[in-house]
Amino acid sequence: MTTKTEKLLLQRRSIRAFKPVTLTPEQCQRLMEVARQAATSTFLQQCSVIHVTDEALRATIREVCRQKYVGSNGDLFIFVVDLYRNYRLRQQQQVGVGQLHTTDVFIQGVEDTMLAVQSVATAAESMDLGCVFLGSIQNDIRPIIKALHLPQLTFPLIGLQVGIPDQQPQLKPRLPLALRTFDNHYQDVFDLNNFQDYDQVVHTYYDLRDANRRVDTFTNQIKKKLTTSQAQRNEILPVLHEQGLCWK
Amino acid sequence: MTTKTEKLLLQRRSIRAFKPVTLTPEQCQRLMEVARQAATSTFLQQCSVIHVTDEALRATIREVCRQKYVGSNGDLFIFVVDLYRNYRLRQQQQVGVGQLHTTDVFIQGVEDTMLAVQSVATAAESMDLGCVFLGSIQNDIRPIIKALHLPQLTFPLIGLQVGIPDQQPQLKPRLPLALRTFDNHYQDVFDLNNFQDYDQVVHTYYDLRDANRRVDTFTNQIKKKLTTSQAQRNEILPVLHEQGLCWK
Repeated sequence: MTTKTEKLLLQRRSIRAFKPVTLTPEQCQRLMEVARQAATSTFLQQCSVIHVTDEALRATIREVCRQKYVGSNGDLFIFVVDLYRNYRLRQQQQVGVGQLHTTDVFIQGVEDTMLAVQSVATAAESMDLGCVFLGSIQNDIRPIIKALHLPQLTFPLIGLQVGIPDQQPQLKPRLPLALRTFDNHYQDVFDLNNFQDYDQVVHTYYDLRDANRRVDTFTNQIKKKLTTSQAQRNEILPVLHEQGLCWK
Repeated sequence: MTTKTEKLLLQRRSIRAFKPVTLTPEQCQRLMEVARQAATSTFLQQCSVIHVTDEALRATIREVCRQKYVGSNGDLFIFVVDLYRNYRLRQQQQVGVGQLHTTDVFIQGVEDTMLAVQSVATAAESMDLGCVFLGSIQNDIRPIIKALHLPQLTFPLIGLQVGIPDQQPQLKPRLPLALRTFDNHYQDVFDLNNFQDYDQVVHTYYDLRDANRRVDTFTNQIKKKLTTSQAQRNEILPVLHEQGLCWK
């Protein structure tokens, strides 16, 4: 029998319209406790969270994300890969930066950060809140690093806007499991023909959500979306290097 | 009032001893459905999951992870950052590799993968199963890429061992929120003195879990753990490049 938590996860959808209220301090506290208890790679605890309440900061982030709901109703949290805290602990114990410049440790921090943000999103949904992940902070990450006063060895990875839902979007259809899961060995089963049924489902989904929105199949989206990118999206590796991350 | 899902997340701990049974096909299917519905960055769906049931493959992965419970009782899943599927869809539509070699798109795939694995872990716990994340596959990732037949533009990011718990470990204490969450601006509050109480808590935790285990405070762990690394852990960036990822 499907559990209540499973149902939440199976019914998850991005909420992009929230009622004009903020979370209570108690709700925020509960969400942060969940972030705190999330799993952490080799116990390094390399994630920090910034709760952005200042209107000017919210406006900066909204501008980067180019979505009016960002930093608007509800509450905005930025989840930060944080290797700086451990750097400071090492520094005060007279040991050097050690492995903190490696891709290995950065990826561990990314894992901590993503485990935390997904846990918070699930908790929020269980509290009848809605949320949307904001990968769009990567549209131009330098202004965000500056605005939040993020030091070396940190990187703002993803945002989460949380609030009381003011919309009920449809569930967005996903690729069938046969195209995403494999037994023992990866298999190239990606003949375009195998995507035809799914393309039709995606096509229908968009039709229902918004008659004015351009309808596009999944395969056509992949053809178009990944072709070019805005300039700053190609600056992510340089910014990581500036932040002292992924040097080798 | 704390929700049931919140309680699950607050009580989460790694399970490393499982009863000598595998999951039912129905349980596996349910977990994969949760993976499938996880959020995905710009709808690119760049995660695949490999269910490893073959004993020789399990042994290979166990050897890399150097933990006897890996690929033993219960079931083993490897979560793969998968940009290859979208590459194939583009190729068949006569468009080039586009942005797939960029760090930007790789990070989006990492996000998809981590959102999926945390969602599956939460679902598993709600089904009274236990699990442990296996970042340790990164100890030596090339043999795993080879064993699972992973093509270019894929990267096995993290494993998840799931089963019926055969132990009840203590909850592992986390850094206090004052050292992990901030309002509006990041703050360097990392004076060693601020870690004293927490160090004592961590010290006690280890004492209780296993009297024979070396007791170490958090700050001391950070001093020691990040100092050096095994050789292959420094090969992660070269391997990403070999796989066609993070070229710029």
